[in-house]
Amino acid sequence: MIFASDNWAGASDKVMAALEAANGGPAPAYGNDDVTRRVEAAMADLFERDVAVFLVATGTAANALSMAAFSPPWGAVIGHRDAHFNADECGAPEFFAGVKTIGLPGARAKLAPETVAAALAEMPAGVVHHSQPAVLSLTNATELGTVYTPDEVGTLAALVKTRGIAVHMDGARFANAIAHLSCAPSELTWRAGVDVLSFGATKGGALMAEAVVLFDRSRTEALGYLRKRAAQLVSKHRFVAAQFEGWLADEHWLDLADHANAMAMRLATGLSASTGARIGWAPEANEVFAFMAPATAARLREEGAAFYEWSMSGLAPEDAPRLGEQLYRLVTSFRTTEAEVDRFVALVG
Amino acid sequence: MIFASDNWAGASDKVMAALEAANGGPAPAYGNDDVTRRVEAAMADLFERDVAVFLVATGTAANALSMAAFSPPWGAVIGHRDAHFNADECGAPEFFAGVKTIGLPGARAKLAPETVAAALAEMPAGVVHHSQPAVLSLTNATELGTVYTPDEVGTLAALVKTRGIAVHMDGARFANAIAHLSCAPSELTWRAGVDVLSFGATKGGALMAEAVVLFDRSRTEALGYLRKRAAQLVSKHRFVAAQFEGWLADEHWLDLADHANAMAMRLATGLSASTGARIGWAPEANEVFAFMAPATAARLREEGAAFYEWSMSGLAPEDAPRLGEQLYRLVTSFRTTEAEVDRFVALVG
Amino acid sequence: MIFASDNWAGASDKVMAALEAANGGPAPAYGNDDVTRRVEAAMADLFERDVAVFLVATGTAANALSMAAFSPPWGAVIGHRDAHFNADECGAPEFFAGVKTIGLPGARAKLAPETVAAALAEMPAGVVHHSQPAVLSLTNATELGTVYTPDEVGTLAALVKTRGIAVHMDGARFANAIAHLSCAPSELTWRAGVDVLSFGATKGGALMAEAVVLFDRSRTEALGYLRKRAAQLVSKHRFVAAQFEGWLADEHWLDLADHANAMAMRLATGLSASTGARIGWAPEANEVFAFMAPATAARLREEGAAFYEWSMSGLAPEDAPRLGEQLYRLVTSFRTTEAEVDRFVALVG
Amino acid sequence: MIFASDNWAGASDKVMAALEAANGGPAPAYGNDDVTRRVEAAMADLFERDVAVFLVATGTAANALSMAAFSPPWGAVIGHRDAHFNADECGAPEFFAGVKTIGLPGARAKLAPETVAAALAEMPAGVVHHSQPAVLSLTNATELGTVYTPDEVGTLAALVKTRGIAVHMDGARFANAIAHLSCAPSELTWRAGVDVLSFGATKGGALMAEAVVLFDRSRTEALGYLRKRAAQLVSKHRFVAAQFEGWLADEHWLDLADHANAMAMRLATGLSASTGARIGWAPEANEVFAFMAPATAARLREEGAAFYEWSMSGLAPEDAPRLGEQLYRLVTSFRTTEAEVDRFVALVG
Repeated sequence: MIFASDNWAGASDKVMAALEAANGGPAPAYGNDDVTRRVEAAMADLFERDVAVFLVATGTAANALSMAAFSPPWGAVIGHRDAHFNADECGAPEFFAGVKTIGLPGARAKLAPETVAAALAEMPAGVVHHSQPAVLSLTNATELGTVYTPDEVGTLAALVKTRGIAVHMDGARFANAIAHLSCAPSELTWRAGVDVLSFGATKGGALMAEAVVLFDRSRTEALGYLRKRAAQLVSKHRFVAAQFEGWLADEHWLDLADHANAMAMRLATGLSASTGARIGWAPEANEVFAFMAPATAARLREEGAAFYEWSMSGLAPEDAPRLGEQLYRLVTSFRTTEAEVDRFVALVG
Repeated sequence: MIFASDNWAGASDKVMAALEAANGGPAPAYGNDDVTRRVEAAMADLFERDVAVFLVATGTAANALSMAAFSPPWGAVIGHRDAHFNADECGAPEFFAGVKTIGLPGARAKLAPETVAAALAEMPAGVVHHSQPAVLSLTNATELGTVYTPDEVGTLAALVKTRGIAVHMDGARFANAIAHLSCAPSELTWRAGVDVLSFGATKGGALMAEAVVLFDRSRTEALGYLRKRAAQLVSKHRFVAAQFEGWLADEHWLDLADHANAMAMRLATGLSASTGARIGWAPEANEVFAFMAPATAARLREEGAAFYEWSMSGLAPEDAPRLGEQLYRLVTSFRTTEAEVDRFVALVG
Repeated sequence: MIFASDNWAGASDKVMAALEAANGGPAPAYGNDDVTRRVEAAMADLFERDVAVFLVATGTAANALSMAAFSPPWGAVIGHRDAHFNADECGAPEFFAGVKTIGLPGARAKLAPETVAAALAEMPAGVVHHSQPAVLSLTNATELGTVYTPDEVGTLAALVKTRGIAVHMDGARFANAIAHLSCAPSELTWRAGVDVLSFGATKGGALMAEAVVLFDRSRTEALGYLRKRAAQLVSKHRFVAAQFEGWLADEHWLDLADHANAMAMRLATGLSASTGARIGWAPEANEVFAFMAPATAARLREEGAAFYEWSMSGLAPEDAPRLGEQLYRLVTSFRTTEAEVDRFVALVG
Repeated sequence: MIFASDNWAGASDKVMAALEAANGGPAPAYGNDDVTRRVEAAMADLFERDVAVFLVATGTAANALSMAAFSPPWGAVIGHRDAHFNADECGAPEFFAGVKTIGLPGARAKLAPETVAAALAEMPAGVVHHSQPAVLSLTNATELGTVYTPDEVGTLAALVKTRGIAVHMDGARFANAIAHLSCAPSELTWRAGVDVLSFGATKGGALMAEAVVLFDRSRTEALGYLRKRAAQLVSKHRFVAAQFEGWLADEHWLDLADHANAMAMRLATGLSASTGARIGWAPEANEVFAFMAPATAARLREEGAAFYEWSMSGLAPEDAPRLGEQLYRLVTSFRTTEAEVDRFVALVG
């Protein structure tokens, strides 16, 4: 009953097999190898256009490098205040990009257009006293298990493009968002106005493999230098590439995400029917947020369940806890089993 | 006949097996797992003392984080001008640590005490106009295949400690240095005055696994934050740790390095007896530097050999090329075979 | 009728005279001169204790250097969201100190203890995923013309000291705060828990002279290097020092601030009695915030008045505008005359 | 007998008068004032073309901002190893621009084209492992009192422009160089290929006033933000501008530099005829480098002379000291008198 995080899961068998397969004879270092070439081609197929792909070891790196590529040092990155880059990366955007980060409120971890518009109005263009908004970062799926639709992304992108602001998507759980929406990856990204995507494979079944996918190719040269200088150019690069190769092949990545999402839905459905827990909102990806009494949570943990208590400080009024409730996050993964879910639900009572 | 670099080799079978073994059930993320605990213990055993260990994805990260941990922003890092941090990391030390890098000359990529002393004399303590020397970085084995002995390290360390300067060892090829010296790792590091080691497993047989090993524990807390902020805290951390576990077990790392070193010696011996090539200096690790006519090099490449031409600009007078000669670097690895070496030598003629 | 900003005023005659007096024969550069020594002694007298003083050219520099001295690169600086460092310094704190800035809400530009406590609770100590709160920055007088009392500063300082957080005071208008409170400078600073003060003379009557005053002397050495590296060590240093000498002598600085504050009070009193404007809240320093109809503002500008419209987005509910009102900031200075004020009030009608 | 540095001198009377004149009524802050407009026009006249001018408080700021404007974070700045930016700015270029600094040797503090060409050859374009050369910085007059001619600047500029490298001139003593060459400022700058000039008034007679002069206007917007973020946008900006206005008017700046240069020539001539000192090389600006016995130097200091011993580590073979000699730097200024010079020479004996 491990619902602590999807990064507690190991790697999928197919990803491991791809890694083994890549460990043949010698291969050029630093990305000049065949596996890397094939992954780049696979990404172009997947996104239905020419893209530049930069593989890195962590999602924080993918986010911070994306921001560094699209922001001048005097820029600001705007996003939800709960966004990973703002709340959980120990200042990596400030370090990599020199930027100021602007964390905005928004129900269920999503930004509303009016909130973004109001923030932009406070930072007029051409005034040297203010950091200049340079990047809008949208996390999809969000930190609260919700998903921006292509239309929602498009509306936000159109809004900020009038100011020349680039759109970044933090896709640590991009797979789960696509699985939920059943749309083409292109629809949720460049066709909706996204310039650069942090495309994460780690949470979805890889060991450590993340990609910066550039739809706006103008920053390609910059990213090459930025990645090396930031110590993210892996020398035996084929071993990062191989993880993506195994993960992307035959829609394996979507199968894994479908499973994780289905487990979240099963968990939400079960808890909704329980008396010991209450679902905060319908899960759209692989995270369920449940209100429970702390005593219930303690009892579950004694039975071996692992999950985190979650902050309630940013909850919208309609999502407020009732007396005696605490909020808990339950994350499913490609490894979550129906048995795990059902046992958890049964224990909740 | 791949002598381009040791990072063209794949991973050793035992490292791959350790990786597979780590892919069992769920495990806490971010280093809070059992494999990581075991690797920390193995490092303490190996170095015969309490150490703090921070695993990262690249050698550049290990170097730059070491410097950031031991230097204030106004510090300077002193090292050989051919050192990887100075010549091949695209400014990572400047980025991670804010420091100024001071590249000094020295025969066969090693620093002489008098060179370091002269440099320090130019940067007097307490003068705000100069960057303050904060870290001496020694690469061992060096970029030219030579090795600092424990005595040489000790002499340099003692010299700089009078100025309160920390000693960093870039050990991307630390295994090859230890294999050459047949000394205890402690003798070449903290017993000789080294405060922090970049301990590289990648070139020696891992996929992507490097460690910052702190002998001076005072920077432990700082490194925890620095690593996360620099996007080098791998979420599924057990997969970096497992590589080290497999590599360190049963002296596997030394066996691999012994083999690579032996192949370099076999290559050097063979080339010394040839008429088509001349060895620049005796290899002490897994790199051979040979003078050849460019036509010879071209012929070898046509036969499938891979290796790089090398800069001759920093050669000491006694290592100068003769008329018509060019310098080439030939790197062996744990995967290099006797047959490869012998075929190469035979082709040289 | 210049109420645009106190930095529109020139320099006081006594400051100019001190500058002339310093322009005698040769003097050592970089702060090794007699005028600088005398200013350091005057600061020690003023604050009734040993202090370290670093003179710089701008208030932004004083703020950002203070933060850099007291925060590690992975630190966070907490302050009011309207604070100059957060809203009007184009990311200088992020640049100088590498930090993340956390802008919190608070009525009339002041932070309430509970707001700070809640923010700290969201950033637990020892967790590498979050920037670590390192500095609390309080602006006094604030951006909305209000003043923290020594007690209020003490309460906030005591709150954050339990987390090892340093307290910085942005005193660009420190003189106006002291003039309002009629307390000793020591009471509003180190006796209340302030570790470092940006002590600004520019707005109060100098040409360009700001000081970082260290009450916590542990950062003295660091600040010396940080100031030089940040290009804020003025070579003909006596000319910055002389401005402070003239400004501090014979309580000239307080006389100037008293006058500016009195002009603000006269303006507020006048406007309160008018029908064309409404005071937002009682001024405590040299800034008056007035609600007027835009047409009134336009008419005043036509008559030669200079002042800025101000954002109403952060106003507390009790300070909300009424229908048709806009908020305007009116800043007085040591040069403001009663005639200017009276004419403005008369024009408001 | 003050020959320690030209920044030991005060300010010229005309500069002080201009400062006084600027202290009239209110004026817009941050450079939106009439004095600033007039200085911009004066600069355009002086350089015979449209330029963008950014005034700052220190020469280090002018240098570091110039580099930040013309280099990406992964860039390298190439200059003489004795250049102020490399040797005396405590890492400001690394801080402001993120760059790596490359200090090259060269006789009498000047760079030879072949030295620059060799350095560029070691840093091939398009290789992510190396910092990319982005700026060539030439100090004129140099740190050793010599001067690059327009032809020399042109040759170096043409050499690096083939790699897309920008040319920066550190003109802390630009006035002395122009006075020596009797050429138009345009000839020594943009007509010779200079893209950006640090134009220093401080050493030449101002209190604290330096300018970044952009001949390549493409970096104008960037510099506006960079200057503010680096805390170099002086709020009462007219007081920096006024110094330039007084200094530039009626060729006052050239008169002052002519005097300083003449005093250096008088000093050199006198010392050449003495038995107690030997001139290292003919002065071309306002610095004389003399070899003396340490006992002679000690005796001069006892008589009240102030000057610095200078490093001999970078001297070309033809400039080597003779047995028992030490090198000393003697700097003249606009305030140096013939009597001071003659007394010093007489004391040398």
